[in-house]
Amino acid sequence: MTERTRSVWGWGWANEIPSGDALADLAAQVSAVLGAQVAPRPGPTRDAIRLAPPSVGPPADVASFCTTDAGERIAHTYGKSYCDQVRAFRGDFTGAPDFVALPRSDEEIAALIRACEGAGVALVPYGGGTSVVGGVEARSGAEPPRGKRGVVACDLRHLDRVLEVDLASRAARIQAGATGPRLEAQLAAHDLSMRHYPQSFEFSTLGGWIATRAGGHFATLYTHVDDLVESVRMITPRGVWESRRLPASGAGPSPDRLVLGSEGIFGVVTEAWVRVQARPRWRAGASVHFGRFDDAVAAARAIAQSGLYPSNCRVLDEREAMMNRVTVDGSSVLVLGFESADHPLEPWMDRALSICEDLGGKLPKEPDYRGEGAKSRADDAGAAWRKAFLRGPYLQSALVSLGVVADTFETACTWSAFADLRARVTSAVEAAMKEACGGGVVSCRFTHVYPDGPAPYFTFVAPGRDGAELEQWRAIKTAASEALAACGATITHHHAVGRVHRPWYDRERPEPFAAALRGAKAALDPAGVMNPGVLVD
Amino acid sequence: MTERTRSVWGWGWANEIPSGDALADLAAQVSAVLGAQVAPRPGPTRDAIRLAPPSVGPPADVASFCTTDAGERIAHTYGKSYCDQVRAFRGDFTGAPDFVALPRSDEEIAALIRACEGAGVALVPYGGGTSVVGGVEARSGAEPPRGKRGVVACDLRHLDRVLEVDLASRAARIQAGATGPRLEAQLAAHDLSMRHYPQSFEFSTLGGWIATRAGGHFATLYTHVDDLVESVRMITPRGVWESRRLPASGAGPSPDRLVLGSEGIFGVVTEAWVRVQARPRWRAGASVHFGRFDDAVAAARAIAQSGLYPSNCRVLDEREAMMNRVTVDGSSVLVLGFESADHPLEPWMDRALSICEDLGGKLPKEPDYRGEGAKSRADDAGAAWRKAFLRGPYLQSALVSLGVVADTFETACTWSAFADLRARVTSAVEAAMKEACGGGVVSCRFTHVYPDGPAPYFTFVAPGRDGAELEQWRAIKTAASEALAACGATITHHHAVGRVHRPWYDRERPEPFAAALRGAKAALDPAGVMNPGVLVD
Repeated sequence: MTERTRSVWGWGWANEIPSGDALADLAAQVSAVLGAQVAPRPGPTRDAIRLAPPSVGPPADVASFCTTDAGERIAHTYGKSYCDQVRAFRGDFTGAPDFVALPRSDEEIAALIRACEGAGVALVPYGGGTSVVGGVEARSGAEPPRGKRGVVACDLRHLDRVLEVDLASRAARIQAGATGPRLEAQLAAHDLSMRHYPQSFEFSTLGGWIATRAGGHFATLYTHVDDLVESVRMITPRGVWESRRLPASGAGPSPDRLVLGSEGIFGVVTEAWVRVQARPRWRAGASVHFGRFDDAVAAARAIAQSGLYPSNCRVLDEREAMMNRVTVDGSSVLVLGFESADHPLEPWMDRALSICEDLGGKLPKEPDYRGEGAKSRADDAGAAWRKAFLRGPYLQSALVSLGVVADTFETACTWSAFADLRARVTSAVEAAMKEACGGGVVSCRFTHVYPDGPAPYFTFVAPGRDGAELEQWRAIKTAASEALAACGATITHHHAVGRVHRPWYDRERPEPFAAALRGAKAALDPAGVMNPGVLVD
Repeated sequence: MTERTRSVWGWGWANEIPSGDALADLAAQVSAVLGAQVAPRPGPTRDAIRLAPPSVGPPADVASFCTTDAGERIAHTYGKSYCDQVRAFRGDFTGAPDFVALPRSDEEIAALIRACEGAGVALVPYGGGTSVVGGVEARSGAEPPRGKRGVVACDLRHLDRVLEVDLASRAARIQAGATGPRLEAQLAAHDLSMRHYPQSFEFSTLGGWIATRAGGHFATLYTHVDDLVESVRMITPRGVWESRRLPASGAGPSPDRLVLGSEGIFGVVTEAWVRVQARPRWRAGASVHFGRFDDAVAAARAIAQSGLYPSNCRVLDEREAMMNRVTVDGSSVLVLGFESADHPLEPWMDRALSICEDLGGKLPKEPDYRGEGAKSRADDAGAAWRKAFLRGPYLQSALVSLGVVADTFETACTWSAFADLRARVTSAVEAAMKEACGGGVVSCRFTHVYPDGPAPYFTFVAPGRDGAELEQWRAIKTAASEALAACGATITHHHAVGRVHRPWYDRERPEPFAAALRGAKAALDPAGVMNPGVLVD
């Protein structure tokens, strides 16, 4: 394997971000869509980045696994949000952590927490650093968090092993620092798979998924990591939080569900037993075209309520379909998929397609069946869509390098609320783009569908003004978030809260629940060292 | 409809508890099984019950919807556990609440909480009163809870309406005091059903289900009420806790999941939006017989991991099968069922039966298909089993009246842990029954199956000694609970914690989680009026 370098400012591997001719092509394409000329700009060079010296160094007790290396501090400054990438592209690393810890055991993490309590240092748990909501950025500018002398990023990359596999129960004990590819490679040795594929899969970690309630790419059923967790081990300032391995329980509120989504405010998740699966032997895929978006939505709803549980059931509106090159005729598309390790899928797909046909869906190509006894055919639309899904984050980085304001946001709402929500969000974002950028494009798709509602996912692209992109982005993001709040939808279906979504999160949650969280936080982390500023103050 | 009277001591309607010839038949049958003579004993008469006067009366502010009526105080003294029924059968109502509140609005409940804080009265939320774990019994004997002057039972029976239905989103807003039949009758007007059928269905309420994380009778998928809740409204001492209606969210830890299982310690649940379904149009059922119990378990596991998601997938061991008159030849039985509002079920049932046949299962009768285009056949084993399921609680009351020590307990564990768990639990219970009662019978079935493990459900029946039944029961229950704890299983899959399971619950949960719960409780209920003694002190 070639040694690859992580981009200092953008998503993932540096050499995977479009550059050269590919970037020029993208620039031409985006210029045409936006009606404004965009062009490549030079990115930062590592040598030109100036870091302030650490305001606090590693306490002696934990110095053996901590570093103040500039490269490590730079690499742990940001997540991968639009704002993170813009600031990094400018070479602005003002908020770098003072030092980085690289523990190799739970004991070292417990020692680090104690040392942080003693030294007044804020501890930010760091998995893949793929947060798009400021989840790993404890400093706001140069200042450390209130009442703290500095910040340490606690990177779990050395805790990346599958420790135990229970074949009969289809479960595995996995360390929190394992990335998607790392844990899948180890599970593959047992012919198992976790099959949790968030878009950040390549870099994000099990611990990060748990801390942020990550959503996988399956459209229905067990797709949020919440449902894949059998038990969790977390090191808190009050000791080890470890739940029993239970398929289900009715013994009080679920301890795991309080860890899920806690975003590091209670402790550092170090391992979990998760539910795994046999690798699929049968797959079925189809792309159904609809002249009217509303009909595609109706079909997705009927399938979500049918009990068929497809692994894929994504609606792309006409803009999404065109931008992803799935259709070019203005159709909306429903991308359908089923998969199973147990049985051929024709009856499932047949019934789902019959639902689509009843609602006006057209099947330009026969469905694609793969597996024993099935004829295999290429399903171009599905394949094109999947490729676009995995390339998405790299594309955003390319747009950042072009000075384009480009981001996504997502929510969930009831079926009855969706039409109004889409209209209000689209018009709010269009108005904000017009005002801040002179124009732009917003599109919508569903990433997940539930019996009671979809998870709509919006993408917007607008021309940026050099140096003003952050303010432009903020105006659009605020308009979008206010529109979601006005519709009673959630500020996030799977991107988490972090620091970016905090104002809308505070309005979304019941106030007594906020009081309960503060009470729990005070009991577990009285010194307030764990990821301060996230979820509660 | 005939006016029916609730039994003052036993389960449900007084006239449904076996008596007369039916009770004599049961006595003969049980005598034969236990090898000890049992015979009907006279139950309590309401006139003979002596209640202590209330130690505190309703505060003036809330007196208009409170009562100290003796009948109401008696009816709200206990849940329906074995111990509750034995004490009530003896006419012992020492622990009666001082008064009963019957609020008609959230405002009245908020006023009641304030009045309880002012007067030092403990408030026990009361739905159907079907707790089998002491969940509604705040007094231990004559003494009120520590630091309190008395106890009020807050009965939600006047809050029993379906307030709103969202057909497109398949959701309904329902008041917490609605029993299963009440809410189903109102949903039926919209051709919808919640399809949540705990064994207590006839009397238990939506609010009670939520507070205790009730399990429905479906064997797989969305069966715990946890998964059916879209949002909850709860009145706490710190104000109204109301979550947004969301199909899913990734915004911090789920507020609803902290309410689910909170057993009244944070507030009174007054309503919820729940997910409802179209009424099923197709059903398929079959009973598969296995010579070896282990093979039936293996089949249940394979089906639980297949992605077929049957609505019923219950394994009865040879004793359960015989006691429920499903088989008489010593076979174990797997009762399989599928149902759908969307599609015929032959492919699902065919594949599940093929899994069973591969593991040695025999099908004494063809599967039964009902619905459009399906031929209908009687499936005697399934029908016999369902009848027994619904009659179960009445049967237990009859056994109480015979002086028999009879109870059930349940758990969940991984597939890999099950064989050892069953062996250890069975031998611990048999040894305890031998020691305390001179003998007895214990049997096992699965009520629910998950990809990573089953929910085993145990029933024990042993001869009682007049006046010593509570001590005998305690010895057996303690042995069973210790065996579960030793196996790392949960103390309850769907019966909740209450006061009975508290010692084992305290050992089961992670200690930092207990600290978090205490912190949350202190923040929400600083005066400690809400159901004291449950979950936290």
